[in-house]
Amino acid sequence: MKTNMETRKPRVLNFLSPEMEQQVVSFSEHMSVDKGVVLLEPGDRMDQVLFLVKGKVALYRTSATGRRHLMYTLNGACGCGLSMISAMLNRESVITAVVEEPAELFSLPVSQFSKFMQSNPDWTTFVLNIVEKQWIESLEMFDQVAFNSLEVRLTSYFQNYIAHNVGLENASTVNKPHSQIANDLNASREAVSRVLKKMEQKGQLQLRHGAVELLMFH
Amino acid sequence: MKTNMETRKPRVLNFLSPEMEQQVVSFSEHMSVDKGVVLLEPGDRMDQVLFLVKGKVALYRTSATGRRHLMYTLNGACGCGLSMISAMLNRESVITAVVEEPAELFSLPVSQFSKFMQSNPDWTTFVLNIVEKQWIESLEMFDQVAFNSLEVRLTSYFQNYIAHNVGLENASTVNKPHSQIANDLNASREAVSRVLKKMEQKGQLQLRHGAVELLMFH
Repeated sequence: MKTNMETRKPRVLNFLSPEMEQQVVSFSEHMSVDKGVVLLEPGDRMDQVLFLVKGKVALYRTSATGRRHLMYTLNGACGCGLSMISAMLNRESVITAVVEEPAELFSLPVSQFSKFMQSNPDWTTFVLNIVEKQWIESLEMFDQVAFNSLEVRLTSYFQNYIAHNVGLENASTVNKPHSQIANDLNASREAVSRVLKKMEQKGQLQLRHGAVELLMFH
Repeated sequence: MKTNMETRKPRVLNFLSPEMEQQVVSFSEHMSVDKGVVLLEPGDRMDQVLFLVKGKVALYRTSATGRRHLMYTLNGACGCGLSMISAMLNRESVITAVVEEPAELFSLPVSQFSKFMQSNPDWTTFVLNIVEKQWIESLEMFDQVAFNSLEVRLTSYFQNYIAHNVGLENASTVNKPHSQIANDLNASREAVSRVLKKMEQKGQLQLRHGAVELLMFH
């Protein structure tokens, strides 16, 4: 028989078990955050663990001179493994987190998160799964930079974009100017524009004002 | 009062608590592995978690075409966070691990490792600490590749080398030919040789046959 909880409330954190979701929701504060807001910067200490319900958050690595490179993107319902670990161990953040699409979040006090970890082995498994997935994503981004040409990196960037937007309206339109795509990849705008034009001539995409229409990345 | 265990045996895995060290040693097989042996390749499944007692193991990321880039180095007594997680979650390895200096290892069955995790919260904390440290090391390597010139990357490479060899004899001699240093950084041998020569002229190092003597990286 279903409990009242299950029949009444729609799932908001469906990457958690219903029981864990209930724990997060009952101990957390609900927040709505606008596009462009910086949630986390290098050096910040976190007394909260954030769970994304809706929207998009981009995680960047930032150089000493302030240049940024996209590391991975959180999209829809999920959490950030590195922030979970840093928060639990009371370490400073080593990444920048920026809201890319208006986001809804649950903010859970880290003391409560640690209590869950100590009392429920499912939480440990959950954290290790998310850490493994996102560590590998960051290694894949490393591969892009260490091994590949800008064209290969742009192709992978667009494939990721499509994969993260499955089911959304306009899933194949990247609403970013060339300069922002260049920033995400820490490449020059000129080089990115040149390669995008080449990809347009091959029929892989269509360039619009402030946007790129993806034609062949499905 | 000290137990017999503590008074009799020298510590071999001093990054673990004495109690955890005893658990690893009693359930593990002891192995000696020669320089050059590949411990782990992408796609491998691990039924053992390896703890390094002595020697050096380099972890590489490998491209589809077989090119390698150093990710981080395990030196002296330590473990590899990514392999621990992959083994526990029964995932394939995503890295290549190569013995760089003759290594002594303890090999612990992953089933036993998982049991420790479930029964002792110290193990969870230990794993999260090691994962956080090494994830950040891999992000720092990412920074090197994404943001820096080859000279800056070589400087950082040598600084890391020194930091990992503190207290050893010949700690400031890198016994590698230019071609191997170039491989570690996925750069061309020609470019590496050119920058090394420039650094020699500045008095930062001295080039020897098949080796680099570091003069100013302490």
